[in-house]
Amino acid sequence: MNSIGKILTLTTFGESHGPAMGGVLDGMPAGVEIDLAELQRFVNRRRPGQNIGSSSRDEQDKVEVLSGIWKGKSLGTPIGFIIRNNDARSADYEEISHCYRPNHADFTWQAKYGLRDPRGGGRASARETVARVVAGGIAMQALRRLGVTIEAVASPVDAETLQRAMGEGDTLGGIIECTVQGGPAGLGEPVYGKLHAQLAAAMMSIPSVHGFEYGDGFKMAAKRGSEVMDLFEKRADGTIGTRTNHSGGIQGGISNGEDIVMRIAFKPVPTLMREIPTVDQAGNPVPLHPHGRHDVCVVPRAVPIVESMAALVILDNYLIKKTNVL
Amino acid sequence: MNSIGKILTLTTFGESHGPAMGGVLDGMPAGVEIDLAELQRFVNRRRPGQNIGSSSRDEQDKVEVLSGIWKGKSLGTPIGFIIRNNDARSADYEEISHCYRPNHADFTWQAKYGLRDPRGGGRASARETVARVVAGGIAMQALRRLGVTIEAVASPVDAETLQRAMGEGDTLGGIIECTVQGGPAGLGEPVYGKLHAQLAAAMMSIPSVHGFEYGDGFKMAAKRGSEVMDLFEKRADGTIGTRTNHSGGIQGGISNGEDIVMRIAFKPVPTLMREIPTVDQAGNPVPLHPHGRHDVCVVPRAVPIVESMAALVILDNYLIKKTNVL
Amino acid sequence: MNSIGKILTLTTFGESHGPAMGGVLDGMPAGVEIDLAELQRFVNRRRPGQNIGSSSRDEQDKVEVLSGIWKGKSLGTPIGFIIRNNDARSADYEEISHCYRPNHADFTWQAKYGLRDPRGGGRASARETVARVVAGGIAMQALRRLGVTIEAVASPVDAETLQRAMGEGDTLGGIIECTVQGGPAGLGEPVYGKLHAQLAAAMMSIPSVHGFEYGDGFKMAAKRGSEVMDLFEKRADGTIGTRTNHSGGIQGGISNGEDIVMRIAFKPVPTLMREIPTVDQAGNPVPLHPHGRHDVCVVPRAVPIVESMAALVILDNYLIKKTNVL
Amino acid sequence: MNSIGKILTLTTFGESHGPAMGGVLDGMPAGVEIDLAELQRFVNRRRPGQNIGSSSRDEQDKVEVLSGIWKGKSLGTPIGFIIRNNDARSADYEEISHCYRPNHADFTWQAKYGLRDPRGGGRASARETVARVVAGGIAMQALRRLGVTIEAVASPVDAETLQRAMGEGDTLGGIIECTVQGGPAGLGEPVYGKLHAQLAAAMMSIPSVHGFEYGDGFKMAAKRGSEVMDLFEKRADGTIGTRTNHSGGIQGGISNGEDIVMRIAFKPVPTLMREIPTVDQAGNPVPLHPHGRHDVCVVPRAVPIVESMAALVILDNYLIKKTNVL
Repeated sequence: MNSIGKILTLTTFGESHGPAMGGVLDGMPAGVEIDLAELQRFVNRRRPGQNIGSSSRDEQDKVEVLSGIWKGKSLGTPIGFIIRNNDARSADYEEISHCYRPNHADFTWQAKYGLRDPRGGGRASARETVARVVAGGIAMQALRRLGVTIEAVASPVDAETLQRAMGEGDTLGGIIECTVQGGPAGLGEPVYGKLHAQLAAAMMSIPSVHGFEYGDGFKMAAKRGSEVMDLFEKRADGTIGTRTNHSGGIQGGISNGEDIVMRIAFKPVPTLMREIPTVDQAGNPVPLHPHGRHDVCVVPRAVPIVESMAALVILDNYLIKKTNVL
Repeated sequence: MNSIGKILTLTTFGESHGPAMGGVLDGMPAGVEIDLAELQRFVNRRRPGQNIGSSSRDEQDKVEVLSGIWKGKSLGTPIGFIIRNNDARSADYEEISHCYRPNHADFTWQAKYGLRDPRGGGRASARETVARVVAGGIAMQALRRLGVTIEAVASPVDAETLQRAMGEGDTLGGIIECTVQGGPAGLGEPVYGKLHAQLAAAMMSIPSVHGFEYGDGFKMAAKRGSEVMDLFEKRADGTIGTRTNHSGGIQGGISNGEDIVMRIAFKPVPTLMREIPTVDQAGNPVPLHPHGRHDVCVVPRAVPIVESMAALVILDNYLIKKTNVL
Repeated sequence: MNSIGKILTLTTFGESHGPAMGGVLDGMPAGVEIDLAELQRFVNRRRPGQNIGSSSRDEQDKVEVLSGIWKGKSLGTPIGFIIRNNDARSADYEEISHCYRPNHADFTWQAKYGLRDPRGGGRASARETVARVVAGGIAMQALRRLGVTIEAVASPVDAETLQRAMGEGDTLGGIIECTVQGGPAGLGEPVYGKLHAQLAAAMMSIPSVHGFEYGDGFKMAAKRGSEVMDLFEKRADGTIGTRTNHSGGIQGGISNGEDIVMRIAFKPVPTLMREIPTVDQAGNPVPLHPHGRHDVCVVPRAVPIVESMAALVILDNYLIKKTNVL
Repeated sequence: MNSIGKILTLTTFGESHGPAMGGVLDGMPAGVEIDLAELQRFVNRRRPGQNIGSSSRDEQDKVEVLSGIWKGKSLGTPIGFIIRNNDARSADYEEISHCYRPNHADFTWQAKYGLRDPRGGGRASARETVARVVAGGIAMQALRRLGVTIEAVASPVDAETLQRAMGEGDTLGGIIECTVQGGPAGLGEPVYGKLHAQLAAAMMSIPSVHGFEYGDGFKMAAKRGSEVMDLFEKRADGTIGTRTNHSGGIQGGISNGEDIVMRIAFKPVPTLMREIPTVDQAGNPVPLHPHGRHDVCVVPRAVPIVESMAALVILDNYLIKKTNVL
């Protein structure tokens, strides 16, 4: 349940204030050059403290690769890695250990497991995503060797809006658009493993995501068939492509070689920097005071996470495609 | 790849114009009463010919259960079933066997497998979904015994709009909203198996779906945290619930006991009843003439399919939840 | 749980006296020629009535392929198939519906599920294996195109021994040795997916099997390292091979290109043709009278089943191996 | 492929001479008391240097739990752990990086992946099993709370035999018998997930194992049905049991509540302390000189590994059984 992928599988572990976060990336093909310095730079893009309004928690996020890569190449064995948690301040979380923060996972985890680690949200913390970018960064390096690039962009938030929200102890959401270029036609499994179904599951697994669409997405619902028809054409190089891309690069659940385009909606950060009324575990009203270090808007930091999830799905399907013929 | 679910798994098979569609629902708990007449009525809701503008293909969709149910109860063994294809007219598809229909899966299947069954779209046809409603109908009966109900509603299309699109040989899309009521808190697996990630994957696997959101969905992205806060309250019966439900019944990927609410966007039907320019397998331009029997708007028929996919995911997670404690 | 395999997966269903047995073989690569007449002949090898002492149940075992194969070739879509049960005599099983037959699955199924279909043993019947030989027969045809052949041989039982056991209402067990020839080096996944671990699981899943070994097997335990060393040599064609094959073609869980050799032990058939003392569901002693139609020795009929399970595992690993490099 | 289990899954990583071995145990139910000091003692049983003839590699095997356990209880989140490699002497392996050791995995890994980490056998080393005993030790603590105990015993080797083999630079194999007591009836999934099939796969995945049997095992093949019949009886406490246990506690693939008994055959250690003729990667003959630190007989150290694999399978099936009813 803490794993994703079929051939290329990522399994992760770690609580926000435990000793370390970590993961195992299994199924990476052998002999792929992996540049660990480049990987660290990619992971750093997710670190807090780089944007206005981002958390002041200061984690170095130093990636320690424990297996699977030797002399700069993947061995075909599982790539185990950890990232130490250094700047955890668990005392900030004494208050919430007996009450439920609204729009957080406190109540649902208690209902599910009967106990929980309240320090920093435990495993429900977005700190969990650091393991995703390690694995995703490795997958992106492999994809680049195949000519595939992935780029995500956050919807812009003007400084004034951000400053005002921050000043009022409030938070913001946002949208990230992600584009995969250079991928071959034929990725994705028809029926339950449609490429966009896998991408949706991967993106919806990122904390705070509330919506996913690809191509023209929800706008498609109000269009006529004739308005969104991606007509075929023969290109100069003799290949067949489409003139438009309302389909977002996926038809019948399988990539058609055009750009794969998707949009992911993030809810506003649930922790406000103001007092909030809530209840304790017995249901009694209690005021919740702002503690901990949190982002005003998590979307900029989520860009490499979105890219990582896309990379894991695309590379997995690239490997699965190899098994479609004898 | 033609399977979905972890404990309760559905595997399906069948091409649109082959002898039969079918499936295997494995992991259904033993001793659950299954009413086969009720199941047939549920499956009938998906049949064509019940709405204006729906396909004239006349399939009886008689469900033949081959195993797993005996004397009105599930045995705990896999429930195998088939539905014969009776009204296939494969001659309608001679033309398309050598060309690619826009916005269909013809091109991508050819790219993936190197060959395809063009008759009625083969396995890429939405006829595949008949197996989903058989399995989903069984899951819904089990859920009802647990007090869980699922209801989906299609966004209304006025008759005039439908008639005009039909008259112009054009097609329509639409949106379906699905609500799960009565489910317990604690469903869903944090991290990669978040309940909404599983629901997204299940819904996005339905043919023609281009978008998924839950709770306030995409609208969340433009809201402030203070606007979408579902504050807790103690209810008359002593339980804890939320005053509002912006979160759509899921927090941190786990159900909180409120209604689970999601919206699914369908693109317009890709087959127009007018001549369309396309290309053949060599990339040469060819006109495509309308053939076959198709829906103008597939959304009304998709309602039981959406309910079925929701039922399969919810029941699967109900079973998984049993393993969260010793 | 009624599925086996990772890329090439077989899911089966069916009770002994239900309407049909069946299965879905998913993940078969596209474009593979499948000869259905040859497949039927392979399935016929498992039919009863061909050996002295085999069951007199007369099933035609006509394979009905419902999907996935078109114009003699696999489509890459799931291959669904059924085999009707025609000669079931459920009345023979009235007696056992309230008592437990020794060495059968009656007691354990009741303990597990709280109910069971007693007719012919329900899903616990060895009739379930007919679906395995359908899938295995398809896999063998694909393997033959790759130059891989599989042959199993039952340990001989002399007619006199068989006649005497039959005359005394008793039964026999036996051993099957299976050899895979022509397979490439590199099949099998180190650690938990070792090729021999996968073969063991597949063979141990056949009804009545009580032991599995490969290469020198249990005899290895009493040998010294120097006695079982498969020394390498360079062969005339320039390839590297081993002079001996104590390892049974597998080293470190991965095939080395030599013959893969394994032995499977079957217990004697548990149904005796004589009165047996047993208990009813309340634990009270009851005599059990011989009923139904049963084999004296199931081992000859199990030969194509063993070959089938080997074929499924080998082909699955052949496909997995394709993903070991980018 | 480096994972095992369905609900309770173990994923491991690590090369023999890399920085660390490690694993992730996912699916452990929440709220289970875990005694880490006891766990360390269990892991220590596998350490070298405790028996005559065992490797002189001196690893402390200090288990570092990184997640999933808090205040002495499991959280329901994945339990990540590492064990540092401290006493690796990679220089010992320079020679073998260009040649293939007989009965080792050098040749097959090279064939599969095109490259390999030769230091200490890389991931093919039995050092990999240290992660199994960490996970298995945790599972055993959970099982004990359920009244289930697991005990394995190695076939005795007299000191004189061991000394003589060691003196001649030779090695020995052996057999381990493992018994599970106190488990409930109803564990195991019929058909492909038979309890003994899962146990076989788990045991055969341990390095050097060449055979598996349960109950009377291979001896069954030469017996008559009447000789191995486990007749039922009503016991003093009103429960139903069997008078004998030829079936080894498993019937029809499902546990019957009697002791589960299995035997596992280990081949002799493949590294001899004498010169061995072999070939290099080009196939040219080269002498192989003994290097590294190796066991003469690995069987005593394998006892906790066998217990661990049994514990993981039994606990996983205990959890699966919970889903058999609604």
